[in-house]
Amino acid sequence: MSALDKLHQRMTDKKTLLCVGLDSDITKLPNRFTEHPQPQLSFNQWIIDQTFEHLAAYKFNLAFYEAAGSQGWHELQKSVEYLRIHYPEIFLIADAKRGDIGNTNEAYAQALFDELGFDAVTLNPYLGGESLAPFLEREDKVSIILCRTSNPGAGEIQDLRIGEKPLWHLIAEKVKTTWNYNHNCMLVVGATYPHELKAVRELVGDELDFLVPGVGAQGGSLEEVLAAGLNKQQQGLLINLARSVIFSANPSEALSDVFKQATGILAS
Amino acid sequence: MSALDKLHQRMTDKKTLLCVGLDSDITKLPNRFTEHPQPQLSFNQWIIDQTFEHLAAYKFNLAFYEAAGSQGWHELQKSVEYLRIHYPEIFLIADAKRGDIGNTNEAYAQALFDELGFDAVTLNPYLGGESLAPFLEREDKVSIILCRTSNPGAGEIQDLRIGEKPLWHLIAEKVKTTWNYNHNCMLVVGATYPHELKAVRELVGDELDFLVPGVGAQGGSLEEVLAAGLNKQQQGLLINLARSVIFSANPSEALSDVFKQATGILAS
Repeated sequence: MSALDKLHQRMTDKKTLLCVGLDSDITKLPNRFTEHPQPQLSFNQWIIDQTFEHLAAYKFNLAFYEAAGSQGWHELQKSVEYLRIHYPEIFLIADAKRGDIGNTNEAYAQALFDELGFDAVTLNPYLGGESLAPFLEREDKVSIILCRTSNPGAGEIQDLRIGEKPLWHLIAEKVKTTWNYNHNCMLVVGATYPHELKAVRELVGDELDFLVPGVGAQGGSLEEVLAAGLNKQQQGLLINLARSVIFSANPSEALSDVFKQATGILAS
Repeated sequence: MSALDKLHQRMTDKKTLLCVGLDSDITKLPNRFTEHPQPQLSFNQWIIDQTFEHLAAYKFNLAFYEAAGSQGWHELQKSVEYLRIHYPEIFLIADAKRGDIGNTNEAYAQALFDELGFDAVTLNPYLGGESLAPFLEREDKVSIILCRTSNPGAGEIQDLRIGEKPLWHLIAEKVKTTWNYNHNCMLVVGATYPHELKAVRELVGDELDFLVPGVGAQGGSLEEVLAAGLNKQQQGLLINLARSVIFSANPSEALSDVFKQATGILAS
């Protein structure tokens, strides 16, 4: 079973579109974890055990592990291992936003897919499809290409017009028509731009799934995301929640609330 | 002294425009290093000790360390430490091509500038200047923005036309007029595209220095790079050599040859 099939299976089994971002910034962990010899790992295990039931995926933002040096990298490795042993049915994303020349991307693909064992990686399109081949060629894995990101200044470059169309539109077309030759691509489209989310869905039809960051701390609305981004099968979205769940007073409850809200909207 | 002043000082002192890329892919190291308990570190020390004399900078491509897991990250850390202790006058670049939302870029800036101690980092412009603020605001450090990369398929996205101008042209303008508010930016312009290199130089004048990868294994010509990219002071280029030096039979000689060639061209 390919990684994308695994994701779809889990979404169907658990009737969920949700992902939790383990952005386990060591400076923001509750005190009882910072005193632990493996603070990020022990925090992640605590979050995972109380959230996995309603989730299709976890997303690790690599910056927060790199910031803790080789110890952070080790705890990232151990966290992925913990998930693969205890919850092998859950889809694991390296939110790394990588993108280099081909020779270097081979090393990144090895690091993220083979050494660390992730199912998917987020990728920056700026160097073009040729450079991304070491990721795109991996039929067993998923390449998630940045299209329209969730940050306030995303439009500065992504809205530049190529003829009549903004750059993000061109990227979505490229992925749909060219880069997705192994049917293993997804797009990143931010929850903070529901208008663009709707446009990307209309453009690619039911063919591509979207990873949607930006609900919660960044201000995106779950309701607007579902209204704008679902495909005809009421699927095709993987909605990420990070700070608003993992750093809440009660992560399990915070996630359950969003899950119930999503279930309610989908049923209505 | 800011990191950029340090780079200029070293370039002037040693009359050099050269940088060596420590792309120390563990699968390509000579046998005597792979058996060492710290293969990448010991290889790097061997390369550094025989090349520093003619160099202004070293560039570490992080992919090749990530591919070796937490041990690789540790050896990266130790390699940077070795340079900062023994050769503190040399400029150190994290070739990481990072670019995420602001909150995440703060963690990357901390990891690369503060934890690891690099002077500079390469950055992807796709998320816009707002997202890059945690790098751009660091007056003491250097942000090197991807403009026109050296890979064969670079043009697929970078040549898209915004009105009359290709995207890479717009990026160069943005950096010059907006993102360089702390006078701490450089651009990446590949040696494999001398025509574009010349155009970027004409566009930005003497204001920005370029990091130029692609001479050597990727096929870029030193002569063409110098003809196209130097500023009016016969400076403004930092030319990177990686595989063609570090994996040659005699790295010291391979570098000296290029240094002599460059010196000859500059004198003529």
